[in-house]
Amino acid sequence: MTTAGDSDVDPAIRAYVDRRLAEISPRVPDNRVTMVVFSGELDRQLASLVIATGAAAMGLDVSIFYTFWGLSALKRGNRLAGKNFKEKMLAIVTPGRLGQMPLSTKNFGGIGRIMLKAAMRDKQVASVEEFFAMAREMGVKFIACTMSMELFGISQDELVEGVSLGGVATFLGDAARSRVSLFI
Amino acid sequence: MTTAGDSDVDPAIRAYVDRRLAEISPRVPDNRVTMVVFSGELDRQLASLVIATGAAAMGLDVSIFYTFWGLSALKRGNRLAGKNFKEKMLAIVTPGRLGQMPLSTKNFGGIGRIMLKAAMRDKQVASVEEFFAMAREMGVKFIACTMSMELFGISQDELVEGVSLGGVATFLGDAARSRVSLFI
Amino acid sequence: MTTAGDSDVDPAIRAYVDRRLAEISPRVPDNRVTMVVFSGELDRQLASLVIATGAAAMGLDVSIFYTFWGLSALKRGNRLAGKNFKEKMLAIVTPGRLGQMPLSTKNFGGIGRIMLKAAMRDKQVASVEEFFAMAREMGVKFIACTMSMELFGISQDELVEGVSLGGVATFLGDAARSRVSLFI
Repeated sequence: MTTAGDSDVDPAIRAYVDRRLAEISPRVPDNRVTMVVFSGELDRQLASLVIATGAAAMGLDVSIFYTFWGLSALKRGNRLAGKNFKEKMLAIVTPGRLGQMPLSTKNFGGIGRIMLKAAMRDKQVASVEEFFAMAREMGVKFIACTMSMELFGISQDELVEGVSLGGVATFLGDAARSRVSLFI
Repeated sequence: MTTAGDSDVDPAIRAYVDRRLAEISPRVPDNRVTMVVFSGELDRQLASLVIATGAAAMGLDVSIFYTFWGLSALKRGNRLAGKNFKEKMLAIVTPGRLGQMPLSTKNFGGIGRIMLKAAMRDKQVASVEEFFAMAREMGVKFIACTMSMELFGISQDELVEGVSLGGVATFLGDAARSRVSLFI
Repeated sequence: MTTAGDSDVDPAIRAYVDRRLAEISPRVPDNRVTMVVFSGELDRQLASLVIATGAAAMGLDVSIFYTFWGLSALKRGNRLAGKNFKEKMLAIVTPGRLGQMPLSTKNFGGIGRIMLKAAMRDKQVASVEEFFAMAREMGVKFIACTMSMELFGISQDELVEGVSLGGVATFLGDAARSRVSLFI
């Protein structure tokens, strides 16, 4: 970045400072937050979305990489057509949507989830679906893990709009230039 | 930081180096570690406190942000008075204190917890309560998540002394200038 | 790092730039990724190894610190000889090897694990043991947490070859100079 005063400084010195900064600057993070969401549990998904929307509101770039059970957050619902037997079984036992996910603990066959959702409504906290929509509007980048899609037999047309696809290199590329990286 | 030798260097050059460093230095982390403790499980809480005390012993500043089930670590015990029905239910099903928490796995109705605590005593490892007290003495900053307090209907006078209150911006403010950020 | 052009620059200026860079460079991370693997669950272990091998393939140095239930990933199998009663109980209830671990969810008494392994074979994804072997070949550093070994009564000869031992300071030493640190 060249500014008014820079012309006072000898070009050889500027080149020297450039070289010295180039030794460290590629490892200085950008204003970025990256999360892996592995868990398919409503409370952990909510935590990731609260962090994502908070970070976006602070002007940070945010990526969420959805893998394994976490991937259910991006599904429109469960579809069985076109799946083989094992894929159907996996689809049946995993939630088809964000709002259907159980809690990580104290779920009590769904009562815990209902209690939490009711408490959130009472306290006028946005629902997990509203947090997801907010995150999307704020420009949070959602990435579906291609290895997990392959394993669970999920195709891109089963996912909500505006989702990118990526592998571990995509995640690491974002995480390595992030000020905060979390596994949730 | 000005040192003896700096006066040998032309002020225009010093100003140039300042400008160039200012491009990256706001994104270089401080000597700081930040954790979100989401889990209300004894073993995960213990892991976070071992890391916190270890980091403090190495001279790093440490913040722990307690959210969701993790918040129980900061409670003096469960209080039902002044809570509505849903809040009472949540209080009843969540541990009232750090030492009452179950394990994340192999809890066997509390037997696992007892076994782990006995093994820790046998091996002269500090208990989770001792680790918490040590962390506090070493200056670890404990922050209670205000959104979780609101959701669970927990007021500040139910929490142990010396806890700060904060939201996701507080967490991100610390995490974004940390060398290590973990979600536990 | 001295290069051809550096001799054009006055030594006093070079010393000044050195001093200024020394203020920030110790806190700029290396090309390194560090993980704590706390969980003894097959799917979480797999996620950590996919990240580890991906990072190593991108030329990053990788350390995985195995603690608590995660430590089972490094065991050759369960050995009861030489253990006291509590240590035997802990050995019996924890998996003796990586491949024996349950899933974090949907395990259904082992059926979920079998389904996941079958899906991985069908889709020609490497098994968790193959990922572990790949990680080792790619130079990923495996560290067993000495406090956990002590607690569970596990000695080094029960662990696979090529594992280092370390405490929380070892983990923090690596994590504090990492571009990405994760708790899994």
